[in-house]
Order: sequence, then C-alpha cells, then structure tokens
Amino acid sequence: MHQDYIKPDNWSIIEEGFDRDRVESSESLFSIGNGAMGQRANFEEKYSGHTFQGSYIGGVYYPDKTKVGWWKNGYPEYFAKVLNAPNWIGIDVEINGESLDLNSVRDVRNFRRELNMKEGWYNRSFSATLQNGLEVSVNVLRFLSMDLDEAGAIKFDIIPVNGNAQITFRPYVDAGVQNMDANWEEKFWEPISVASDANSAFVTARTFKTHFTATTFMQNAVFVDGNLQQMVPSDIQKSGDKIQFTYTVDVTKGQSASIEKIGGYTSSMNHSDTVTAAAEVVKSANAKGFNGLLSDQKNAWAKIWEMSDITIDGDVKAQQGIRFNIFQLNQTYSGKDSRLNIGPKGFTGEKYGGSTYWDTEAYCIPFYMATKDQQVARNLLTYRYNQLDKAIENAAKLGFNNGAALYPMVTMNGEECHNEWEITFEEIHRNGAIAFAIFNYVRYTGDYSYVPEKGLEVLIGIARFWHQRATWSTARNQYVILGVTGPNEYENNVNNNFYTNYLAKWCIDYCVEQLEKVKDEFASDHNRILSKVNLDEVEIAKWKQVADKMYFPFSEEHNVYLQQDGFLDKELIKVHDLDKSQRPINQKWSWDRILRSPYIKQADTLQGFYFFEDHFSTEELERHFDFYEPFTVHESSLSPCVHSIQAAVLGKMDMAYTFYLRTSRLDLDDYNKEVKEGCHITSMAGTWMSIVEGFGGMRVKDGQLHFTPRIPGEWDGYSFKINFRGQILKVSVAKNQTSFALESGDNSEQITVFMNGNAVTVEPDGVVVI
Amino acid sequence: MHQDYIKPDNWSIIEEGFDRDRVESSESLFSIGNGAMGQRANFEEKYSGHTFQGSYIGGVYYPDKTKVGWWKNGYPEYFAKVLNAPNWIGIDVEINGESLDLNSVRDVRNFRRELNMKEGWYNRSFSATLQNGLEVSVNVLRFLSMDLDEAGAIKFDIIPVNGNAQITFRPYVDAGVQNMDANWEEKFWEPISVASDANSAFVTARTFKTHFTATTFMQNAVFVDGNLQQMVPSDIQKSGDKIQFTYTVDVTKGQSASIEKIGGYTSSMNHSDTVTAAAEVVKSANAKGFNGLLSDQKNAWAKIWEMSDITIDGDVKAQQGIRFNIFQLNQTYSGKDSRLNIGPKGFTGEKYGGSTYWDTEAYCIPFYMATKDQQVARNLLTYRYNQLDKAIENAAKLGFNNGAALYPMVTMNGEECHNEWEITFEEIHRNGAIAFAIFNYVRYTGDYSYVPEKGLEVLIGIARFWHQRATWSTARNQYVILGVTGPNEYENNVNNNFYTNYLAKWCIDYCVEQLEKVKDEFASDHNRILSKVNLDEVEIAKWKQVADKMYFPFSEEHNVYLQQDGFLDKELIKVHDLDKSQRPINQKWSWDRILRSPYIKQADTLQGFYFFEDHFSTEELERHFDFYEPFTVHESSLSPCVHSIQAAVLGKMDMAYTFYLRTSRLDLDDYNKEVKEGCHITSMAGTWMSIVEGFGGMRVKDGQLHFTPRIPGEWDGYSFKINFRGQILKVSVAKNQTSFALESGDNSEQITVFMNGNAVTVEPDGVVVI
Repeated sequence: MHQDYIKPDNWSIIEEGFDRDRVESSESLFSIGNGAMGQRANFEEKYSGHTFQGSYIGGVYYPDKTKVGWWKNGYPEYFAKVLNAPNWIGIDVEINGESLDLNSVRDVRNFRRELNMKEGWYNRSFSATLQNGLEVSVNVLRFLSMDLDEAGAIKFDIIPVNGNAQITFRPYVDAGVQNMDANWEEKFWEPISVASDANSAFVTARTFKTHFTATTFMQNAVFVDGNLQQMVPSDIQKSGDKIQFTYTVDVTKGQSASIEKIGGYTSSMNHSDTVTAAAEVVKSANAKGFNGLLSDQKNAWAKIWEMSDITIDGDVKAQQGIRFNIFQLNQTYSGKDSRLNIGPKGFTGEKYGGSTYWDTEAYCIPFYMATKDQQVARNLLTYRYNQLDKAIENAAKLGFNNGAALYPMVTMNGEECHNEWEITFEEIHRNGAIAFAIFNYVRYTGDYSYVPEKGLEVLIGIARFWHQRATWSTARNQYVILGVTGPNEYENNVNNNFYTNYLAKWCIDYCVEQLEKVKDEFASDHNRILSKVNLDEVEIAKWKQVADKMYFPFSEEHNVYLQQDGFLDKELIKVHDLDKSQRPINQKWSWDRILRSPYIKQADTLQGFYFFEDHFSTEELERHFDFYEPFTVHESSLSPCVHSIQAAVLGKMDMAYTFYLRTSRLDLDDYNKEVKEGCHITSMAGTWMSIVEGFGGMRVKDGQLHFTPRIPGEWDGYSFKINFRGQILKVSVAKNQTSFALESGDNSEQITVFMNGNAVTVEPDGVVVI
Repeated sequence: MHQDYIKPDNWSIIEEGFDRDRVESSESLFSIGNGAMGQRANFEEKYSGHTFQGSYIGGVYYPDKTKVGWWKNGYPEYFAKVLNAPNWIGIDVEINGESLDLNSVRDVRNFRRELNMKEGWYNRSFSATLQNGLEVSVNVLRFLSMDLDEAGAIKFDIIPVNGNAQITFRPYVDAGVQNMDANWEEKFWEPISVASDANSAFVTARTFKTHFTATTFMQNAVFVDGNLQQMVPSDIQKSGDKIQFTYTVDVTKGQSASIEKIGGYTSSMNHSDTVTAAAEVVKSANAKGFNGLLSDQKNAWAKIWEMSDITIDGDVKAQQGIRFNIFQLNQTYSGKDSRLNIGPKGFTGEKYGGSTYWDTEAYCIPFYMATKDQQVARNLLTYRYNQLDKAIENAAKLGFNNGAALYPMVTMNGEECHNEWEITFEEIHRNGAIAFAIFNYVRYTGDYSYVPEKGLEVLIGIARFWHQRATWSTARNQYVILGVTGPNEYENNVNNNFYTNYLAKWCIDYCVEQLEKVKDEFASDHNRILSKVNLDEVEIAKWKQVADKMYFPFSEEHNVYLQQDGFLDKELIKVHDLDKSQRPINQKWSWDRILRSPYIKQADTLQGFYFFEDHFSTEELERHFDFYEPFTVHESSLSPCVHSIQAAVLGKMDMAYTFYLRTSRLDLDDYNKEVKEGCHITSMAGTWMSIVEGFGGMRVKDGQLHFTPRIPGEWDGYSFKINFRGQILKVSVAKNQTSFALESGDNSEQITVFMNGNAVTVEPDGVVVI
C-alpha cells in the first residue's frame, strides 16, 4: 500500500500530526529550492530521531573516488556528486534549560507542515509539552528567495503557553557536514575560515579536489512579542568549521520569543571573494527585511504560476499532484545559469549525485520550452555545447576518434561519471537524445540560430560517433549496432536495439540535412565550422552510407519492429499473467532473470515512436503499443508518461488516465516506497507532458500549434498555458468544449492554431470557444 | 618483451644476481608449499625494499565484505579469501650492531636463489658488504615438509669473511599481518594468546567472522661452526600478536653462526587445541632434526617425481617449464584432504582469493587422476558433493527451485563469492564442468561406485538446474538458453552460447543415463536417492524434453556451430590482421569494444569440442578449429592448452608446439607481466594435458588407453608416466619410436593399450618399443 498522509489541497502540501516514521519522507516532500540552492525540510532545532540532512548548492560537486568490485578499462576515476553543503538553517533551542527536541519532548500536538506552492514558502507548527512540564507553541516559516537567490530566511517563533520561560536560541552555521552517500567515507569539505561580525557569521570552506569555495552565512535578529531586541550574542562558540551564537530572552506566558535568521551561500562559481560577497548578500537581505523578502517571494511565484500553472477541475488530488510537479521543477532549475542542469532528485536528496542525465533532453526540455522564455531551453542546450570537448574526450577513452562525441550517462562537468559497463559504455542512445533536443528546440521555438551558432558542432560530433559505432555485418549486408543497452535497462548488451539504431540513423540524417541548410543559409558559419572540425564531403558520404544501410530488427509475424535481435526468443508471458508476488521484479528477481525476461522497465521501442511520432502511422503506433505495453512493468519513473501520451493518442483514455495518476502523485503517495531518498524531479516533467501532449494533444507541425484535446472521465475540466514563440496561449478543456485564449503582451499578433486539424485563429486578448 | 632471468636447468629454478625490481617476481616463482600450507619466497631477514609478503594455510579463509559500485539482487554478501597467515619465517639479523637488510647494505654479490624441484627445497645465498665494512657470506635453506605437513624448516648460516663479528638472530612469529587485497582494509586476524617455552614460541590468533583458530609456532636452535649452542633467548619481546627472541653469538672471521628454525601452523580445521597440537609438531620435528626432515623431504619428492615426472630431451627450457608446472601442482594440492581445493594462484599470491573455480574440474582433475592414486580425484569430486546443499541454496537465490543446483563461480565453502552479474549469474557453464568431471572420473578410473554413492545426486541437482534455466522459444519451437556468459568471457549476456547449450543437453542426457544404470545395477541406491531428492518419472520426462529439443546456433554458410546467436553480425577481422599495438585487447580496449569484437579470450566452442571430442568427426573439429582459432587472443592462461591439444590432433604440430611453449613457461618468462601477483597454478595442469593428451594423444575409450604419439620437431624425445587403474605405464616418445613400459607393483597383470588404433600388450616390468 502506498502512503496517503498528505492532505488533499489545491495549492498546498500539508501534513498533520507528528509521526517519527514519516520524518524522512516529509523532509523530501517539503523540500524547498530556488534553482541556485535547495534543502530538505530538516528541522532547524535539534532532532535526535532519524533524519536525512541535506542542503545543496547548484553546481558545487565533489569527485568521489569510484568504487567498483571489478575494474573495467574505460571506467571513470570518480563519480561527481552534488555535496551535502554546510548547514545554515540550524537553530538549537533551549527552553528553561531544556533542549527542544521533538524526539524527546513529553508530547507533540497539532504538528502541521505546509508547503505553500502558490507563494513559495514552507511552514511548520506544533505544540509541545517539555519534560519540565512547560507547554510551548512553535511556528517556523522558511523560504529560499527566488529573487535574491543566494539567500534564504527563517522565522522561528515560540510562545510558552502555561508559564514564563527563559528561551535561548543558538543559531549556527556548520561546515562539518558529510554526505550519506560517500564511497569511501571521505570528508568532502575543508574548512578555511570562521568569522563573525555583530549578529552575522561567515564560515568559509572549500571542497577537496574540485576546490569550490563557499561561504555559508547567517544574520540573526531576536524579537520579543514582535519587538526587535537590540542585542548581540551573549556567547560565541567557534571551532574550525562551525560557529554558534547564543541569544537568551525571557518571556512571560503567552508572549512570543522569535528569531529571524537570514542565511545562504556565496560560492566561487560566482564570486572571487565569497566572504565579501556574503556580507553584500546580508546587506541586501537586511535592506528588504524578512517581510520584504517574503513579499518578493510571493510575487516571484505568482509570476511563475501565471505562466506555468495547470488547473484541473473536479479532482483535487490530481490538481495537487500536477502543481507539486510544476513547483518542484521550478524550484530545481530556473534557467538563469547555463552551467546548471536538472539532477534526477533535484535538491531533495543525494541519490544519482545531483548529476545530469539524458532525462534533461528527453523529458525536461519540453516543459521548460513551453513554460519559460526560450532562453531557458537554449541554456540547457548550451550546457551540452559547452561540454562538447569533454564528450569528445569521453569517446576517445572508448576508442573513437576524429572528433566523435559521446555525451556521458551521468555528469557534472562533461566527464563521464558512471561506472557500470552496461550503462557507461553501452547505454549510448543518450547521445541521440542530445541531438533530438536540438531538433525539438528548433521545431518548437523556431529559433534556428542555435544550429549554426552552436548546435551543428554538437550534431557533427554525434554523427561521427554513430558512424564509428555502427559496424558492417557481412551476413546481413547492412550496418548493425552491437552491444548496447536501450532505454529499457532490463536488457543489457543487446544487439540492434531498434530505438538506438533508429536514433543513430536519424542523428546522421538530421546532421547532414542541417549541414546542407547551414551551407545554404549561413555560409560563413558553415565554413567556420567545417574548418574547425575538419569535416569534408568524403566523410559525410561515409556517414550517409551507415544511415542508408542501417538494419532494424523486424518481425514479419507480428508486423512490429523488435526491441532488439532475439526478442522473440523470450518466454512472452504478459505482465498481466505474472504473479503479483513477483512484482516489482527489480526487487524480487536476480539480474539474470530480469535480463532474460521480456519485461520492459520503461518505454524503449515506444520511446522511439514518441520521439518520431510523425514517422509512423497511427496504425503502426497502435500495433507497437499493443505489442509492447503488455510487457512493460514501468519500474522507472520515466516510463508511464510516454505510455500515457500514446494511450491518449490511441483513444485509450482509461489507460492514459491510469498512467497519468501513477506519475503525478508518485512521490506524494510514495508508490515506490523510497521518497525519503528524495523526489523524482526529472520525471515530473513527464507528468506535465502527459497533460499537455497527452490529454491536450499539443504538437508543433510546420511551425504551428496543433491540439487534439481529450479529457479523462474523472475530470470536469483542465487548463494549461504555453509560451509559443513569445505568445502566451491558454488552453482550457471541458467535457464538451475547448477554449483558446491568447494573452496580449509584447506581441500583439493573432495566432492560428489547429484543433483536430481545423484552423482556429485567436486574437490578442481574445478567446475562442469550440 | 618477457623476462628471461631464470637460468635454464633441468631440475632447478635458478636466479643469479640481485635486482630489487625482480624481488616480487622471484617471491612468486620461488614459492614453496606442501598442500597444507605455502608461502611466497619472502626473505627471512628484514627487507626494506618492495616486497609482497604472503603465507597461506590451506582452507583458512576470511569472508571479505563485498565491494561493488552498484548492487544487483542476488549478489553475495562477501568474497571468501585465503588469508595472509601469520609470519613464522621471520628472523631479523644484526651483525656488529647493523641490521642485515639487502636494500640498505653497501653491496650485494653472488646473490643466488635455487628452487630445487627434485628434492623440494629452496636455497638463497649471497655475499654482502655491510655499511660498517664487514663482509658476510649468507646461506639460507628452507622447505615445507611434505610428511610433517604442519611444519617447515629454515637453516640460516652467516660467515663473516673479513673480520670477527657479533651476530644477533631475532627469530619471531607475527600474527599482526594484513592482506594486500582487503576490500575495506579490515584486519582479518584477532590475536588470542602469545606463549613461549625455552626456545619455542606459540602465537594463537583467530580469524574474524569465520573463527578459524591457528597457532603459529617456532622452535629455534643456534650453532657456531656447526656446534649447537646450549642457550635460551637473552631477551623475549612480546606484544599482543607477536613474539621475538634474541640470541647473540660471537664468531671469528671465517667461522659460521647459524640458526635452525622450525615453524608452521596448527589450525582448528584439524585440532581442537591448537597450542598443544603445535607443541606436538615441534616435538616430532625435533625428533627428526633438521637433517632428518630434509632427508624425508627428498624422499617424499622422489616418490612424487617417480609417478608424475615428464622428461623432455633436447630442450632444457621446455623441460624446466613442464617440471615447474608439475612441481607447483604438487605443492598446491596433495589430495589428502577433501575439504581443500586448488586456487588459481595456489599458495603463491592473493589474487582470486585462493578460492575454487571450475578450473579444478575442467583442467586439474585429469592431471591428478593420471599422476596420483584415484582417491585424490575422488576427493576433488567429493568436495563438490559436500557442497551440493550450498549449490542448491545458490540456485534458490537466483529463483530456481525443487533442488536445482548451481555451483558457484568462486567459492571456499560452497557459497557463491563472486559479484559481477555477467559472471556470477550468467557464467553458468561451470555447472556443466562439475558434471563432466564425474563422467571423466568414471571414464578414466573405471570407479563407477562414485556415481551411486555421491555423483548421481550432484547430477540430478545439475540436470534440474538446466531444465529450469532453459526457456521455450515459440519462435524457434525449441528450447533456448538466454543471457549467459560462456568460457569466453569477452562475450557477456549472450543468447544460446553453443558450449553452454551443448553442455546443458549433455548434463541432462548423462544424468538420465546414470539414473537408468543405477536403477538397473544399484537398485537400493536408486530408491534411496529418488526418495531423498523427491524425483519421479514425470519430472525426468520434462528434463528429456529440454535435452531433446535444445537449440544450437549453426551457420549453414560456414558449416560450423556458432559461438552464440548473432556471432556472424560481428566485424570478422582475424587476430592476425589486428594491429599489434591493440594487443592485449584487455589492456588496450574498453569493455564494450571487446564485447562487440569477435575476439575470443579462451577456447569456448572449441572447449566443447575438447570435452566431447568423440561426438564430432575430425573434419568437424578441423572446420571449427580453423574457424575459431583465428579469432582467439588467448588472453586467459587456460586457453592455449586446449588449442595445443587440438592442433596436435589435427597434425598442426608447429601450432601445437607454439601453444605448448606459451603455457609451460607462462610464469617463468612472465609473458603477462604479472607473475609478481603469483603463479597461474590451475593452468599448469593444462600444460601437462598439452603433452599427455596433445603430443602423446592419450585417450580413454571403452576402458582402455589409446595413444597417438607425436613429437615436436624441436625435441629429441619425451616421456611421461600415468597411473591407469592402479597400473603405472611409462610412455616414451622419440623421433622414430615410441615405447611403453609397465611397472610392476601390487598389480601383476599385463596391460593392453592402443597406439594409433593398434593394440599393444605390455607385460609387468616389460617394455614394448614400436
């Protein structure tokens, strides 16, 4: 059974009641972030129960020495991990000499957490009876500023309910933190300096090996009954990597004692002198004050929702689910900085090292393209462009040459980090997703300039890789691609994975097309690039041979492309006929059994049909869907969205809705019993796609928007907005009508879209109801 | 270039001259053992240069916690490793107050090591000039007693050449040792007690987790000019895990100072009170004295050589090579104890953990069958019989049931230890080798009693495994075996590896045959076994279906069985056409490149033709040899012997000789540049097979010996002896004649053998020359 303690609410994630066993799960679910940093919902005060502490700074990572049982040539030396960063939220609290600790107080009542997604803050409140008999009422509000993105703020209020109290706040900054996931239990941070100035403190530490410097700071203000106390710490405890202030106030029964703590990080990614920079941030935050920062926060989130909200009528759990997904995506990546990317767990945990996967290109880019300015998606593409040299180095390590590029499976700085041969060396389809994202970006935004400026070089490196990676089969008289792992990681080292072969051919064809187009339309770029990468017609002709003579496994009997050679040799027992006690197979079966089974972890052949929908007829899609869906176990969070979209296309709305539900509340309801490790951030973009591309049927064809709206029987209506080439279109779908509304803005032109193939023209500020 | 510092000699391994860079290699090559224990040729005195310390006690192991990058369901918790055991050989030496250390003396001359294989001892001698100007001449003789197999002996002589000297011997026993290869750098030994009595000392330690107790002991006697000094230690240093005695004598120029040290281990494998047992061993050794022990040693080795020697005339390097192999096999496994087995590195290093691999059944059993009493091979079979329950547990962990047995890839106590999914879960052909060894044992020895007593249960467990592991392919209308790794580990997770499928079918067929035979001839055993394992005719009929409808990949075009499905899709570039800079591919290529290449690490399809030679015609063998040999890189030490035997069968004597040379001096000439890690013990049995089965052409058919002698052009002659069912036959092959000599013994019957198909009868003590 999955969990169901989160209260249904349209705009907030709410937990009521204190349960020690839920603390770590809630620490994930109530995580907050602002694109530049993020943190799990750890308590500010001491907590002696089970907790998973986590604060993260975007882009600051540590190369953790690889741990393997048996080394294979080509393995990377390290796995780059986003670090657990120094703790700035900590505030130890003593009340009448007793430490406030929810694990050891006599009693906790009215415990409540709320993550207000509309306004971007997290609040925690409770009443507790201490061992000394005193009852206190506590409220803590916290947020990470979207505007001043190096700062966060906490307001911690305590009211003694049944007596007077001496309350001691001991706010601290601590760089003596470690990762839960450290291969060799090494320390990742080296302390540099600890300094303080009146109510501020600055702890500077440097990561070993990568030498990122970060100053973690705090600025404290203490209040009694809302009145600022003009006080400095009565005591300051300093060690090499920690500083802690002491403030003591006396309050009478019913009076509040409060501390406002501003904190955050300035790092060497953005500053040469991080201490001075931190003092500047403190100054800016002080100028706004807590309330000013909070007010800005609400405005910032209002703007985000204005553009990216999806409404669902008549299904509060579905509404809460989709907003949670959109909220998390916005917390994780703001698109401001092309050095950053989207880790599978965002800022909510350590798993997957916070590194970049092909998830970004395959699942996240559509979301950011449609809900942000196109510069955001362009930054994500540029991230890969900037890592092209590293991708060429990665390929060289595996024996490829002449500028062939293999983008890494997992990376922070462009170097491959993963160390399972069947993934690192063989899950090479990722390379195709990088190329597809360029195509997808141009198709959606119409911004072709990216191709001559940056994209074409990436496409050339990728085409070169596929040309070299394919080998000639004399027996087949065709090119084959041997020894790969497709998106379905429940098959390893297979030959001729359809998805991989198809993508490889497409990458070459697309690159050759763009070479022609750039030659015709951007001649000077063409010359610059060809001379830079030393490419000539002879080489291009060789690529074309591979693309033209690529082999695709096909079953005449079933009239479908086969996931890989030999797929039909398997015992083709459908998931439906598998005993439930055997599920999930990744927990119940040994790896060899999984591999020889027909079960599909996530869309593989169907992922190809998703990317290249317009290459196939609906009949072909249906045949492949009907063939593969019954063998798909969806044991990856990235799987159901593709199936949901395709089920919608095929009019199988019940299936589409089931798949949708499975993704949208995956974390809130903890279907996989692992949310305490963090949330599935990248798959959240797939949930968005399920609605917009699945139910809404949004596609871009020949530079124009097409929709085929459908609505699940369980809903009264839904709406979403998209930014299409600078125009903001709101699409609202009800049981019996669809309406299109065009927001006016900088762009005062009308827009023509297609609904079920029929043109619909919408004027600025106009609404068309159909 | 390979090394060539070992002096050619018919009976000894000799090194001359001191070279710091060779110390670790020589420590491997000059290793000594007696089946129960063994040790690398570490210096007794202090050595501050690079050295790899190693002493091992057969069967005493530690379960080292598994280290992997990414856990897969079914991985074992630990890897069992033979431990580096406490050091008893250590004798620190001080001469006129200066420590004797070959790394820091002023000068070393006349350094010489000799491993006398004929007599079973190791001698080291040198002259050194100390920093204080004194010249000394040193001679150290050491051996591990084959008779008193818990004891070894050292005689350490020093003569000051150019002055008088005060010489201090500090013999010690030290249990504070660690493994070079320890996954988590844990300590493996827990000290228990340290005791001494006059000139004896006893250090008792226990392994963590496995709780083997071992007492390591020493007994010392000091001599001046050969005269025993009635003295006890002038000082005794004790710590928790070490004890060291001090003896000081004064000698004049030209006089010798000597210490005789008896030492060794008594372990809880054989004794409940290891300290008392150690005192008994000391007593027994004292009774013999150093010279008595040495004299016994020479006799023991004379007996071994009497039975197992191979002579080669006209090629001293080949002679030295084959004797080194036979010597090492006898040092490693004496066959006395069915709890022991043959680790790939024997007692010469830590690699492969000293654990048991399928090498034993596939390569070692023929050697021990032919050169020892049949009880030795029976003990090796019994080792697996005793681990049948664990093999059933191993299979259950992978989802098999009903008593299906999967023998481990690597083991000490029957539990699987290895942790690479492509090996642990998929290199399942090992199971077939266990069954084949039973067949091979019965074929050679004629001792069928093993089958009803023990073997049949093993065969049933294995047949059950194959029945469950094969799956039905509707597409082929045959049974297939998906997702395996064959003997050629340069292919992983392939479908329908010919060798595996063939062996699987054979295992079932053979088991069913033996069930019939035991039913007919050993009815009570039959009833006992069927009821014990709960087997009935219905189940057997299901096995038969699998065997009868097994699929074998075959190429009509090439008229050969294919190594696996899809082999012909590869780029079939022959090894000969591969640039030399690319070799060895396991050092030059990343794993994916190796996997998609056609290159074969060790005989795979050809291994099947070796096991089942009589199932195929010579033409078929030749076709397969000619097809696969050109793709074989022989990057396993177990590969060339099979190719050598088959080349000999096919009359390709140049190839046969080349392959032979490559195996027989693999370690002496350090072809793989890794001998410092230890010697390749199990492949040494393959070298023996190359001569006896390859050049000699020995086969057993219908209970009789057949020979097809051939002689490499480089040799004048060779001879080998075999024990065939209690009769000792010597086969001598010269350029133009072959002679058979039958030794008389307990058995006074004549023997009829076949040479090139013609019967030859030899009388006891008779010789037949052909």
